[in-house]
Amino acid sequence: MGRAITTAFTTAGHRTTAWNRTPGKGNDLDATIASTAAEAIAASPVVVVCVLNYQAVQAILDPAALKGRTLVNLTGGSPRQAREMAAWAAGHGIDYIDGVILNGVIGGPEAALLYSGPREVYQEQQATLAALGENGTYLGEDPGRAAGFNMSLLDLFWTSMFGVVHAFRLAAAENIAPADLGGHAKLMAGLLPGLIDLVAEHVAADEFPGDASTIVSAAAVLDEVIDTARTNGLDDGVLSAGRAAVQRAIDAGHGSAGFSRLAVL
Amino acid sequence: MGRAITTAFTTAGHRTTAWNRTPGKGNDLDATIASTAAEAIAASPVVVVCVLNYQAVQAILDPAALKGRTLVNLTGGSPRQAREMAAWAAGHGIDYIDGVILNGVIGGPEAALLYSGPREVYQEQQATLAALGENGTYLGEDPGRAAGFNMSLLDLFWTSMFGVVHAFRLAAAENIAPADLGGHAKLMAGLLPGLIDLVAEHVAADEFPGDASTIVSAAAVLDEVIDTARTNGLDDGVLSAGRAAVQRAIDAGHGSAGFSRLAVL
Repeated sequence: MGRAITTAFTTAGHRTTAWNRTPGKGNDLDATIASTAAEAIAASPVVVVCVLNYQAVQAILDPAALKGRTLVNLTGGSPRQAREMAAWAAGHGIDYIDGVILNGVIGGPEAALLYSGPREVYQEQQATLAALGENGTYLGEDPGRAAGFNMSLLDLFWTSMFGVVHAFRLAAAENIAPADLGGHAKLMAGLLPGLIDLVAEHVAADEFPGDASTIVSAAAVLDEVIDTARTNGLDDGVLSAGRAAVQRAIDAGHGSAGFSRLAVL
Repeated sequence: MGRAITTAFTTAGHRTTAWNRTPGKGNDLDATIASTAAEAIAASPVVVVCVLNYQAVQAILDPAALKGRTLVNLTGGSPRQAREMAAWAAGHGIDYIDGVILNGVIGGPEAALLYSGPREVYQEQQATLAALGENGTYLGEDPGRAAGFNMSLLDLFWTSMFGVVHAFRLAAAENIAPADLGGHAKLMAGLLPGLIDLVAEHVAADEFPGDASTIVSAAAVLDEVIDTARTNGLDDGVLSAGRAAVQRAIDAGHGSAGFSRLAVL
């Protein structure tokens, strides 16, 4: 990510100083390579950081050196961590923007970056940050908002990935070759965008029609999938945890509602 | 489904007799409506059944009446149930094809139906079944094969749907409106087809490179998502079950492999 971010800034014509914990990394880039984080901070009015986690951010950055500068933190973390870091920055006279990189892409129209923090600070840096992706989205003053979006979206993404790997595992147990499953699996994944719109509509309207399929019918299908996984001796932890949530919805009297009802339980 | 299937056959010009457990249903269709299942069976050489589950199929169908006819069962179930029903059909002199409707669509190029069972029987009925969807796929002689595909694909689909509803729930807890999450959620879902191809490649090659992201890095992200769900007082059953599978992979020494490695554990 450090390489992609540095390249995006230099390509956009910004004088850029980069630091990486591994010495020598980035020596081939069209940027000044600093030998310490402090040197990189001292070189620029805007500091962009993207490391493993928020603990690493605080271990690397000297708040005294950042005073009066703008810190844009693209490290992934929870809304609570983002709000704590914003308070830490404010306490040290640092302008702070918390951002997230949604899809791992930096630069161009496909990059999807979200930002939150003081509007004035974002507006000052918006033109500079456009180098990272022209379609950056500002989400508001709450510094935890970008992280809140990120956590919700990673919830969807990683839960889906549990489904992807388990589907291939179950297919293998049923002697189905990966390439044979793949095309049909993409068809199923292709149903999700439309269903995401539908769930969003249902949640916004607080109405969860079960016309097309109900929570009870989802439970019946899930029981068959779980039974098939167990018959093949596979772990069914994720499926069974989801089935338990479905059962709680049924027990609470929502069995004839649509599956989207689970989004508000 | 009964209505859609009947309409597909009548639209294709097939003389069709339909039966539904609720009397009067389908009276508006261009088909003969039978008052009993036996009457519907007696009317045609090919019987297509799509009901709640395999238990319902056997409760409805009289094997003696089906003798010498072809039964196409589009009811969803496990591979074991499909194989048992194929054996039951064979024992009663019934030609049997087990099929699944992947995406709930009947008719036209978008319908995705899979079939398995004796090749000769499928080939005899292929032209007739084309009325249900011109892109039907024959998967082979094992009558459980269509169901095996279906269970694997429903595993992917419903696990992903657990992620969709939980993402909206978490977003609501973070004061993110459903419509605001929706667009970005579709972006995340849009990453899945490419990743499905990648996982299929990795599984086929039995190589799971962790260049882009490793199981350990997935674990770190999941911990943040789980922490955010817990901080908001939400159920984290599905996420934690997936996290446990990730931990088992790490404990087994696969932490630096790609996430796709979970597809063969």
